[in-house]
Amino acid sequence: MRLLVLNGPNLNRLGKREPEIYGTETLADVEVRLQALAASLQSEIDFRQSNHEGQLIDWIHEAEDQQMTGIVFNPGAYTHTSVALRDAIASVTVPVIEVHISNIHKRESFRHHSMLAAECVGQICGLGTIGYDLAVRKFLQQ
Amino acid sequence: MRLLVLNGPNLNRLGKREPEIYGTETLADVEVRLQALAASLQSEIDFRQSNHEGQLIDWIHEAEDQQMTGIVFNPGAYTHTSVALRDAIASVTVPVIEVHISNIHKRESFRHHSMLAAECVGQICGLGTIGYDLAVRKFLQQ
Amino acid sequence: MRLLVLNGPNLNRLGKREPEIYGTETLADVEVRLQALAASLQSEIDFRQSNHEGQLIDWIHEAEDQQMTGIVFNPGAYTHTSVALRDAIASVTVPVIEVHISNIHKRESFRHHSMLAAECVGQICGLGTIGYDLAVRKFLQQ
Amino acid sequence: MRLLVLNGPNLNRLGKREPEIYGTETLADVEVRLQALAASLQSEIDFRQSNHEGQLIDWIHEAEDQQMTGIVFNPGAYTHTSVALRDAIASVTVPVIEVHISNIHKRESFRHHSMLAAECVGQICGLGTIGYDLAVRKFLQQ
Amino acid sequence: MRLLVLNGPNLNRLGKREPEIYGTETLADVEVRLQALAASLQSEIDFRQSNHEGQLIDWIHEAEDQQMTGIVFNPGAYTHTSVALRDAIASVTVPVIEVHISNIHKRESFRHHSMLAAECVGQICGLGTIGYDLAVRKFLQQ
Amino acid sequence: MRLLVLNGPNLNRLGKREPEIYGTETLADVEVRLQALAASLQSEIDFRQSNHEGQLIDWIHEAEDQQMTGIVFNPGAYTHTSVALRDAIASVTVPVIEVHISNIHKRESFRHHSMLAAECVGQICGLGTIGYDLAVRKFLQQ
Amino acid sequence: MRLLVLNGPNLNRLGKREPEIYGTETLADVEVRLQALAASLQSEIDFRQSNHEGQLIDWIHEAEDQQMTGIVFNPGAYTHTSVALRDAIASVTVPVIEVHISNIHKRESFRHHSMLAAECVGQICGLGTIGYDLAVRKFLQQ
Amino acid sequence: MRLLVLNGPNLNRLGKREPEIYGTETLADVEVRLQALAASLQSEIDFRQSNHEGQLIDWIHEAEDQQMTGIVFNPGAYTHTSVALRDAIASVTVPVIEVHISNIHKRESFRHHSMLAAECVGQICGLGTIGYDLAVRKFLQQ
Amino acid sequence: MRLLVLNGPNLNRLGKREPEIYGTETLADVEVRLQALAASLQSEIDFRQSNHEGQLIDWIHEAEDQQMTGIVFNPGAYTHTSVALRDAIASVTVPVIEVHISNIHKRESFRHHSMLAAECVGQICGLGTIGYDLAVRKFLQQ
Amino acid sequence: MRLLVLNGPNLNRLGKREPEIYGTETLADVEVRLQALAASLQSEIDFRQSNHEGQLIDWIHEAEDQQMTGIVFNPGAYTHTSVALRDAIASVTVPVIEVHISNIHKRESFRHHSMLAAECVGQICGLGTIGYDLAVRKFLQQ
Amino acid sequence: MRLLVLNGPNLNRLGKREPEIYGTETLADVEVRLQALAASLQSEIDFRQSNHEGQLIDWIHEAEDQQMTGIVFNPGAYTHTSVALRDAIASVTVPVIEVHISNIHKRESFRHHSMLAAECVGQICGLGTIGYDLAVRKFLQQ
Amino acid sequence: MRLLVLNGPNLNRLGKREPEIYGTETLADVEVRLQALAASLQSEIDFRQSNHEGQLIDWIHEAEDQQMTGIVFNPGAYTHTSVALRDAIASVTVPVIEVHISNIHKRESFRHHSMLAAECVGQICGLGTIGYDLAVRKFLQQ
Repeated sequence: MRLLVLNGPNLNRLGKREPEIYGTETLADVEVRLQALAASLQSEIDFRQSNHEGQLIDWIHEAEDQQMTGIVFNPGAYTHTSVALRDAIASVTVPVIEVHISNIHKRESFRHHSMLAAECVGQICGLGTIGYDLAVRKFLQQ
Repeated sequence: MRLLVLNGPNLNRLGKREPEIYGTETLADVEVRLQALAASLQSEIDFRQSNHEGQLIDWIHEAEDQQMTGIVFNPGAYTHTSVALRDAIASVTVPVIEVHISNIHKRESFRHHSMLAAECVGQICGLGTIGYDLAVRKFLQQ
Repeated sequence: MRLLVLNGPNLNRLGKREPEIYGTETLADVEVRLQALAASLQSEIDFRQSNHEGQLIDWIHEAEDQQMTGIVFNPGAYTHTSVALRDAIASVTVPVIEVHISNIHKRESFRHHSMLAAECVGQICGLGTIGYDLAVRKFLQQ
Repeated sequence: MRLLVLNGPNLNRLGKREPEIYGTETLADVEVRLQALAASLQSEIDFRQSNHEGQLIDWIHEAEDQQMTGIVFNPGAYTHTSVALRDAIASVTVPVIEVHISNIHKRESFRHHSMLAAECVGQICGLGTIGYDLAVRKFLQQ
Repeated sequence: MRLLVLNGPNLNRLGKREPEIYGTETLADVEVRLQALAASLQSEIDFRQSNHEGQLIDWIHEAEDQQMTGIVFNPGAYTHTSVALRDAIASVTVPVIEVHISNIHKRESFRHHSMLAAECVGQICGLGTIGYDLAVRKFLQQ
Repeated sequence: MRLLVLNGPNLNRLGKREPEIYGTETLADVEVRLQALAASLQSEIDFRQSNHEGQLIDWIHEAEDQQMTGIVFNPGAYTHTSVALRDAIASVTVPVIEVHISNIHKRESFRHHSMLAAECVGQICGLGTIGYDLAVRKFLQQ
Repeated sequence: MRLLVLNGPNLNRLGKREPEIYGTETLADVEVRLQALAASLQSEIDFRQSNHEGQLIDWIHEAEDQQMTGIVFNPGAYTHTSVALRDAIASVTVPVIEVHISNIHKRESFRHHSMLAAECVGQICGLGTIGYDLAVRKFLQQ
Repeated sequence: MRLLVLNGPNLNRLGKREPEIYGTETLADVEVRLQALAASLQSEIDFRQSNHEGQLIDWIHEAEDQQMTGIVFNPGAYTHTSVALRDAIASVTVPVIEVHISNIHKRESFRHHSMLAAECVGQICGLGTIGYDLAVRKFLQQ
Repeated sequence: MRLLVLNGPNLNRLGKREPEIYGTETLADVEVRLQALAASLQSEIDFRQSNHEGQLIDWIHEAEDQQMTGIVFNPGAYTHTSVALRDAIASVTVPVIEVHISNIHKRESFRHHSMLAAECVGQICGLGTIGYDLAVRKFLQQ
Repeated sequence: MRLLVLNGPNLNRLGKREPEIYGTETLADVEVRLQALAASLQSEIDFRQSNHEGQLIDWIHEAEDQQMTGIVFNPGAYTHTSVALRDAIASVTVPVIEVHISNIHKRESFRHHSMLAAECVGQICGLGTIGYDLAVRKFLQQ
Repeated sequence: MRLLVLNGPNLNRLGKREPEIYGTETLADVEVRLQALAASLQSEIDFRQSNHEGQLIDWIHEAEDQQMTGIVFNPGAYTHTSVALRDAIASVTVPVIEVHISNIHKRESFRHHSMLAAECVGQICGLGTIGYDLAVRKFLQQ
Repeated sequence: MRLLVLNGPNLNRLGKREPEIYGTETLADVEVRLQALAASLQSEIDFRQSNHEGQLIDWIHEAEDQQMTGIVFNPGAYTHTSVALRDAIASVTVPVIEVHISNIHKRESFRHHSMLAAECVGQICGLGTIGYDLAVRKFLQQ
């Protein structure tokens, strides 16, 4: 089994950016932990980040072509605005779980609504980077 | 460690009600699985359901008095309307994770907004009854 | 055949409360008339009232367990706010007709919308307490 | 006693149009049944249909001139848009009961609001063509 | 000089309908007074009423073909809903003054907005049937 | 009989300001014409202008104290924002007619709504400065 | 094959009305061109116009009774307000293409939304009267 | 004279809950002070709290049956959502003063609106628990 | 201790204006009673009224310069519109209690919202002119 | 003559993605048909697709530099969100026709509005991929 | 060249009021610095402040009469509410630049919109009192 | 000191695009002038433009890594839609001033709101390309 863990805009700054909201852990730290978890479950993770909406769409299409088991997707700010990412998710059969590190409902009101959630399997938010682990477990083991 | 797993209105009909949305598993089935999970982690679960908003508030207050580790709360339909439950959560220091079995973002628009989410640690939705397990893990082990 | 006639909050004050809107007939008067009507049609009526939302939900679940023919439901003020009652109606197969004594469209704008109507068979409003009789006829005879 | 039963736009296609919503009964079938009911109650019914808003207004004015007992009015799509029909109802003393065959609250959101309801005695919806019978009974017998 | 005085739906009931809002004067009374006023100013008035939106549109087109000096238009309830009448006014070069007998701003909020006003020269409301006289004076004498 | 003709903010610039909307006539020109009209009807006009909301309120109170016959009021931009002027009109028994030189419905949307209209007798707009004359006629002669 | 080309309110003034928006071509010119196009494709066109909403509904019903191939419908101003025409389209099986000569999205915001589009096959707007030709081609040839 | 002082959901946690908003005084402290105040004015106070909306409705009905002088009501979170409590207040003749300890206008926007205020005599907010004393004085002494 | 009691627009007409809403007591009557109350509590009251928003702002600034104990402010209609008064209150350290004689929640919807309340200590409304007394007590004695 | 046919995000998955909405034809199939049509009209087509908003903007600028005759643009999901594409269209003189394969008015409400339409010549939607052919004809032949 | 620097309500308290938002610099400090800047550019500045909306309007009219080069205007709270100041700016040919010391977009949402901006040349906000200097440079030198 | 001057979508067409809004100056002209200004202040400017949102985000991150003094950012159309750019600004400590050449408040309403402004130091709009110079001065000299 192979999962794509996809990270959207500004997540490359995790650990440097607004640590009072996101903590000091970097995206690299998260990848190390998830690779270990996946390995323990006889699976692989393809871990990526881009600030480009078009690039994220291309990668979702690729996941379909490569018949991946699932996508764990933290779409960052595109969560709230991108109909194109929503359509990309709808255009593939690979299931997607949306993950947010912070509790989006505690922040500005324009962050309360997700354009993508209705096309995803489900959503985890506010549980820190552990949210990625829980989504991986849901796909690989439960 | 001791957790309260709290279920709101109509969840007593889980397995009988709209199985195309909620599946055929009953709330009793879920309790059995969660008790086993908690036991394996040297913890206990207090599992309850009520259709009465006032009762749910009383139980949240009790969890504080009993110094529980956390509350896993599926507030059912009160999610979308209850300022009183929001205040109950705000009035205690026990952390709460909100869980929804179905993906509320795929359903009627009045179900997209949670009155409670901003006072909870975080939210899990759309991952079926496994969402309860993941919330338990977040509290007990991660 | 057996029907449940269910009355929501403040209807226990019918006849005493705002008679210019609701008339001077009491809920007991209505029950007497409906029991006679049901008897003339070889049927029974179970007639109840509660100010408690949770109690009304419990009774809707019971009607399902007792395989009643239908529910004639005047939800009072919960009409406009209760997603939990809406879900209770959706969670049973017993058909429900919503009845309002006054014409809710002539009153404050927050009374124009019913949270429940979309899950009921239909709605009768503004025809006074005769609305109950017409709903009973629809179930028992037409 | 004499009643006007008035039908608005597209109701001439009842039984042909969208039978999954409206059933296969035609407007002629309904008229036959209502005439029988009225006759059994020593009354008469004047049964009409038009797709023209102005025509419906003219007929409501005539009902006043002919001192009819009441109007049972299914205004079809004009329900949601016609201030002119609302004013026509307000301009006469003949009481009007609004009837809808389908449950308008289960359909598109622009069908949930009636421009006319606030000027009518009351409204019956979702009870099929039996709604006409119940409205006739309310006027003639109760 | 020749003016068209055009009256929309339900104005044929003026004097009979809701006299507390519109007074007891009939439309015939108004016509008599306006004909006298016009005659005193060496002009003629063509005075009409219809409940049919399409008929009112046809007459506005005719006023253009007959090169009338102006149209005094009380559009009744079509004021608030008719884009088609708005377009009819925009499609002719004859100037139009909108007149309302009652003060539309004192009534239900859906009567506060006129779809037509932006295509008319101006609007007079709340001055009773004298509003027609003032509009006639504006066209014929000032 | 004595009338107060009251002009609100920026009307002192009439004839200088945006002539494509308001024409080249000055407020002094209008006063001359209205004084002549009033004199011909054995009446007097008290003609004033202020840019200060509080001053306009004081003058409306004075009109009551001096038992004037009516107020012709062009409230300028305060039309759309001033609850205090609305209350001032409501607090006196002198009737008020609201006049606007331009057609407020052809301009920016925030000019379409008048805070004052519901407390005035009626409103004339879009008929140029002749609107003042027509309002004076309504009070003095009709 | 036979098509109905249906034109709504004010289109009888095409070529006379606001030529800066609609051009100088008349509806008769359009009919001539379409008849030629249809003839070249071994088909016939029935070309009509009415300012009456009820008349347009009647004609849509007739097209069904006469088993026409399709309706090319320019509903004019009724586009934005008529639920009754929407229902008429829904009540027949003849497919409808909505055509607008001007680009409705460049005009007032109340023209941006079509009540009918969701019940039509599709919509063409802003391509001038050539929009009719393209719709005819879609039905007859593609 | 006898007053009912009624407290809604979560007020049992006063003094424990969010002391930066509500202070450290408990509800018991408030009761002691109010009883003393009432005694000094030859009156009695019946002081209650419940988290159950239905219970609060029942108590309002009882106050009517017991002919109490007035109700001082802090409805907590039900302030913003409960049409049923609004109707309960409307259904009795005992006058009600709404009291809030904190200034609801300084908090989240959903707390700015009270569903109950329009049926109460008046409202006091933001003056701390002294608001109860002032309401008691208004009823007993002024 | 010294308090400023400040009254906004149209309150100079109290007792003359709309007595069914405001009663027949004049502002002078209120001042007499408040001076007596203050004297009994060894304090002074500076009692003022203006219809000018700018004047009210100037006086609030002065209260700060004179180190007054508090301001009891009935802002009249400026309550609902004045950001400038809100800023004036925010710009001083003297605490302000907002008072309304009538229950603003029973009146037009544009009166339900106060622009000032969030910068005041609290608000009293609907308790008649006794609201001033209660606010004075809160500042001077409690 | 040379046209640019531009396709936005996810259209590379046409034929694979949601065939019940978009059919099984691929974008390559469409290109073949359009090239044939253009050739038959002595013209050329430059056919492109990108998931990147910035890339689409760059290509629109290029079309201007290469003096193309027109752009047939299916902007996919960027239709509803991209002000930048709207500005790109406004910044060139090459005319653009917007094409949608599906009827956007039958889908989710956020798809009903196009940010781009007001800057395009016109729009064709719901006519399947034939919409591209009709747009090409409009530019090349009519 | 001569500029008017105009300051609206509460700016007289600059340096005393909410220093965490506005700093400790007083309006007199700003005037000194601007006079020096203007002198260095062979120009003069007329520097004023008022809490009265009417006074600010009068001064804008005067600037026109005195043929000033430009107005640097910090309208304070009137920014968000004053149509009358908007009209005053529109009624003169002297260009106006709107200046805000704080970043209005970081504050309450009702401060995000300026009623005046559309009639000004442009707007500077959030750059502290240096915003005045930059606006002066734009007028006098660039 | 080193500044980044960043230009968003379509600004590469400055001078070619809609000159009635943006003038005939090109972006290259602006760069030359700004480089001269910076040089005169012993500083450097890095001047860039991209139509790609992701590219702009990458450059903002780089500015942080290179410890630049500030960013002068004209985000073009992304101003109104990009939460991702807002987050990019929030994720760095380099201060950003938002610049718009035209007065966005004079244009379509969707251009009145900036998603970015709340995370920037401040905003300059409507002062033409001189806005860039003023922002540079604010950073380098004031």
